[in-house]
Amino acid sequence: MNAPAKDALVLFMPSGRRGRFPLGTTVLDAGRSLGVYIESVCGGRGICGRCQIQVTEGEFAKHQITSAASHLSPFTETESLYVSKRGELEGRRLSCTATILGDLVVDVPQDVQINRQIVRKRAETRTIERDPATQLCYVEVEEPDMEKPLGDTDRLLRALAEQWRLQSPLIDLHLLPKVQKILREGEWKVTAAVHHEHGRPVVVALWPGLHNFACGIAVDIGSTTIACHLSSLLSGRTLASAGAPNPQIRFGEDLMSRVSYVMMNPDGRQAMTTAVRNAIAVLIGKVCGEAEISPDEILECVFVGNPIMHHLFLGIDPTELGGAPFALAVSEALHFKGSELGLPVNEGARVYTLPCIAGHVGADAAGATLAEGPHRGDEITLLVDVGTNAEIVLGNRDRLVAASSPTGPAFEGAEISSGQRAAPGAIERVRIDPETLEPRLKIIGSDHWSDEPEFLEAAESLGVTGICGSAIIEVMGELFLAGVIDEDGVIDGSLAAKSDRIVQTGRTWAYVLWRSGQPGSNREIRILQTDVRAIQLAKAALYAGVRLLMDKLGIDHVDRIKLAGAFGNYIDPKYALIIGLVPDCPLDKVAGVGNAAGTGARMALLNKGYRAEIESLVRRIEKIETAMEPRFQEHFVSAMAFPNKVESFPNLAASVPLPARKSAGDGADGSPRRRGRARRGLE
Amino acid sequence: MNAPAKDALVLFMPSGRRGRFPLGTTVLDAGRSLGVYIESVCGGRGICGRCQIQVTEGEFAKHQITSAASHLSPFTETESLYVSKRGELEGRRLSCTATILGDLVVDVPQDVQINRQIVRKRAETRTIERDPATQLCYVEVEEPDMEKPLGDTDRLLRALAEQWRLQSPLIDLHLLPKVQKILREGEWKVTAAVHHEHGRPVVVALWPGLHNFACGIAVDIGSTTIACHLSSLLSGRTLASAGAPNPQIRFGEDLMSRVSYVMMNPDGRQAMTTAVRNAIAVLIGKVCGEAEISPDEILECVFVGNPIMHHLFLGIDPTELGGAPFALAVSEALHFKGSELGLPVNEGARVYTLPCIAGHVGADAAGATLAEGPHRGDEITLLVDVGTNAEIVLGNRDRLVAASSPTGPAFEGAEISSGQRAAPGAIERVRIDPETLEPRLKIIGSDHWSDEPEFLEAAESLGVTGICGSAIIEVMGELFLAGVIDEDGVIDGSLAAKSDRIVQTGRTWAYVLWRSGQPGSNREIRILQTDVRAIQLAKAALYAGVRLLMDKLGIDHVDRIKLAGAFGNYIDPKYALIIGLVPDCPLDKVAGVGNAAGTGARMALLNKGYRAEIESLVRRIEKIETAMEPRFQEHFVSAMAFPNKVESFPNLAASVPLPARKSAGDGADGSPRRRGRARRGLE
Repeated sequence: MNAPAKDALVLFMPSGRRGRFPLGTTVLDAGRSLGVYIESVCGGRGICGRCQIQVTEGEFAKHQITSAASHLSPFTETESLYVSKRGELEGRRLSCTATILGDLVVDVPQDVQINRQIVRKRAETRTIERDPATQLCYVEVEEPDMEKPLGDTDRLLRALAEQWRLQSPLIDLHLLPKVQKILREGEWKVTAAVHHEHGRPVVVALWPGLHNFACGIAVDIGSTTIACHLSSLLSGRTLASAGAPNPQIRFGEDLMSRVSYVMMNPDGRQAMTTAVRNAIAVLIGKVCGEAEISPDEILECVFVGNPIMHHLFLGIDPTELGGAPFALAVSEALHFKGSELGLPVNEGARVYTLPCIAGHVGADAAGATLAEGPHRGDEITLLVDVGTNAEIVLGNRDRLVAASSPTGPAFEGAEISSGQRAAPGAIERVRIDPETLEPRLKIIGSDHWSDEPEFLEAAESLGVTGICGSAIIEVMGELFLAGVIDEDGVIDGSLAAKSDRIVQTGRTWAYVLWRSGQPGSNREIRILQTDVRAIQLAKAALYAGVRLLMDKLGIDHVDRIKLAGAFGNYIDPKYALIIGLVPDCPLDKVAGVGNAAGTGARMALLNKGYRAEIESLVRRIEKIETAMEPRFQEHFVSAMAFPNKVESFPNLAASVPLPARKSAGDGADGSPRRRGRARRGLE
Repeated sequence: MNAPAKDALVLFMPSGRRGRFPLGTTVLDAGRSLGVYIESVCGGRGICGRCQIQVTEGEFAKHQITSAASHLSPFTETESLYVSKRGELEGRRLSCTATILGDLVVDVPQDVQINRQIVRKRAETRTIERDPATQLCYVEVEEPDMEKPLGDTDRLLRALAEQWRLQSPLIDLHLLPKVQKILREGEWKVTAAVHHEHGRPVVVALWPGLHNFACGIAVDIGSTTIACHLSSLLSGRTLASAGAPNPQIRFGEDLMSRVSYVMMNPDGRQAMTTAVRNAIAVLIGKVCGEAEISPDEILECVFVGNPIMHHLFLGIDPTELGGAPFALAVSEALHFKGSELGLPVNEGARVYTLPCIAGHVGADAAGATLAEGPHRGDEITLLVDVGTNAEIVLGNRDRLVAASSPTGPAFEGAEISSGQRAAPGAIERVRIDPETLEPRLKIIGSDHWSDEPEFLEAAESLGVTGICGSAIIEVMGELFLAGVIDEDGVIDGSLAAKSDRIVQTGRTWAYVLWRSGQPGSNREIRILQTDVRAIQLAKAALYAGVRLLMDKLGIDHVDRIKLAGAFGNYIDPKYALIIGLVPDCPLDKVAGVGNAAGTGARMALLNKGYRAEIESLVRRIEKIETAMEPRFQEHFVSAMAFPNKVESFPNLAASVPLPARKSAGDGADGSPRRRGRARRGLE
């Protein structure tokens, strides 16, 4: 016979943390003492219902724990009262009142799932343990007493210190005029929003009674689009999302033209700061409207963006980022009040911006790195955010390097004769028959290929207006696979004999991707030699940057490639490999990862641990300035070819029949002859 | 023969701190290592000239140090350069470059002398060691480097951390847009204003190059008058002072009528907050104009005021202070930004408000306590700030108690038939001949007594308009000494037979203090029985409060009495004793101490150590709520008599011939009969 146990083994899932606790300990206390994050607004009074957990019956041999629901105390009076007021717990228990009677496996429900399916259309989801920088703390405050004339605010702060173990809490000035009224309205029971920053807890908002709701926003300020997500800080659920074009576009399409605008116009910086802040204010109104909450419920705001967006949002002149040495005004993460930026959120709401990695590798790249976590694994991961500037992070848990490459706007459809933004009518998919050289294509707004009868109707109503970014990559890849362009990117004029798709334009040749079927219309969408050259320049710049980072790490292949951003999300990884945008890699290890920057922002919103993680990570990322590296130019020239002349592509070759190289054996040399050819191509 | 010493004994004056240092140590380093505050903006580069010290020749047997100027290194090149650029050092040395060669006595010049002569007309001056919460730090910042893309701001903060040993400095958001321009303008040499608060240093202002100037203001918000002093944070010198009436007077003369105004008017609180902040803004403009500096140089602001002024200034509704339990919205010291209050000072300037002691014992009383320091000595000190509410602090280093007493506005001339504010024409001094009962008096605006021929001219041009606060005390004292009023405060009508100054007014008698000499004018200034009663009530309230505190401490006498505030400054201590306003005390130990609250504010401005001192002191002061104490009423009734019936006045009697008591032996009993009489006097 065993003597009755005096303590019990408790395992918390999904974190896997475990420990022994005296019988009678509440599950909440046990979890917290192990550092398991269990939300609780009321501080264990059984009224907020946030600390729910679940205990499953059965044996857990794997965990060496025989768990049974009977190892948890029976349903308590507090729980009955809670159920009578707030509704069923549906098999869950309130961990602040349920106590440990024997070995247990406790499931902490993770309502927080940053569901990537929505953004990326792939199955991976991730569970984020919550630990937001702002927490709600319900307290009972002593009433004033003439014998002890401590101020009402001081008694509130003392109650917080005692009941929530907060060290010397402070309070925002804007609350001082409201404290007395709120305390009396709540009959000396109030809920404080406490923000933790720089080591000192600060009361940033206050409500009478129990206030069981708190929100935050995560915003990705892209140069083209601004995306805003509203999340509950308590459940972690995303309540609403909205996006809008960045209104700075009217000052300049790409980043550098916006910097020029600031340099040329005395009020340019102010105008762009106002524009982006107003757009964000509108988005905040939109997500709040959609979720039917007051903007006053927003207590935390996290922002990411490339360095120029980051600076303009903060009211900083980005001129220094326009030229060497590309000095950031500030690179570290920043904390301030929403009111300092005029954001229409709770007056005490706090703002956090992720750190910038380098002059052209911004807080958005930091967010993407945080979300994709190359630093968490052993695989050498290449993370690329493709835009006007490509932001590149490469490495694994041991070492990370980062750089930006001046790809220019070709990938976004600019500098391409028929290029356009993604919009209905834009060509988004292309296939070219290697025998007949006839194309098949799809346009945005129709699900049908152009050889299906339904396509014509869509084409007539939408028009076939141009080629969007992702299709440009595809058409180049298909032209290369079909032999229309050779490895040096030259359109083969001799094929004009075989197909009327090959036409002469001045001294070079072009490929006719689309001809209007309308009688009397001679509208055509052509791929010109200059278009091929523009893509060659852009992809060579990106590849050279990646290659430089690989040189730094002394590696000749990568284990995994993640393409972030809208562009990275829509391009077919196969074509990225075929045109040599990225180094060779097994096709199933290359994937678009959607708005990883935004995901990183949401992580920093929901858990302050991620803030510490990205801040210390950014400090240790080694930054490479491509413009400073002599080898960049060398890699760049060699990477002009399709796929390129820097490396062979065994993984790619295994899945796609690549055309034979013109001169096998000298693929990787970048010999003067080839360089000369490549350069001529630029003229 | 002695072996040559390897180190030397150095004594710093006036602090008296001493230590041994290796030869060759700079005097600055030696001083700092002992905690001696020596200002330095340039951090030891010999360019700011702030770290001047003086070494006197001669033997200092008392200090056991044989000091000689030759024990200091010869004039250095740095000093020569400084002199060539900035002018003579006049016998002083730059402690950052002068090194120790032997035993030394070092004088640290204390330009900071809060010269009380100006305010108080007495000789005491006090030296305050400076250690302001905001310091200027000149730094040289690394230029940006593409290889190490840390932001400009981050490099600035790192330079501050390294060159000034600051732990993890932060920076204000408002500076971020300016940092890059300032760094380049100063060619990577800048001066940062660093504010220390809550343990983290924060950069609050930034200038290109060496910025060798920083100011602060100390403001005492009185219910009647607002006083503002502008001081250099570097030298401690007061650069300008200005005062203005508190514009809230138009909402209510006294504190309680202002609270009522807030209660009756929905916008009352806002109107009064705006009024006081605007008045302070005007005063800031005035002192800056007088000192010929930009308000942008103001980096620190310290405020004191009674609880209602304190709350209204901060935008807090003072309604709760209008009734029991007199709950302060906030009692502890507060820190925030000037910009949060809309003050016209540097955008990064910080504001500090001293703590309030209790519901009616405010930050002004805390300031006065800090300035007068009853807690620093062994003497039992009574510190009284006389106003509509008297704020009373009593005790010594062992124990301090505090209370407020509802004296009402009689001491300010209100409730007195001929009372008026101090203004030209007001009677300010009174003497009454005990034989003839004829008065002599002086009016504000004339140096002559009324029995001098020059007086008439002044009386004709200014008029004799009323009696100001300090003279009310004096006339009561003189009437008592002359036997016109008895110890119960009754005007003796039988004296009408002896003097036509005694006249009947209805059922009581009055004393004619002034008769116009103008033919045809029958203007008189009379002291009515009701005036005597009003003063009896006010002085009894104050005395009863003091007595209650004495009871708490279990003492029957005090060693020293300090009368703070404008009223305390102008009344003759002798008359304060004669009418029994304060307990008996040797006359030479009773003194007015002027605007002690303002002095305390200046101390907190110039040395953050005083902030810590008053904060911890206020926490340990025992607060007595007079309204809660049953003995208050008892003391109050007994204290109605002149001087009063609570105690005998041996010290007073030794210097002033007091009238014989009507009934010797029952002076201290407050018997029903006497109480009844005193009460009737109130009817």
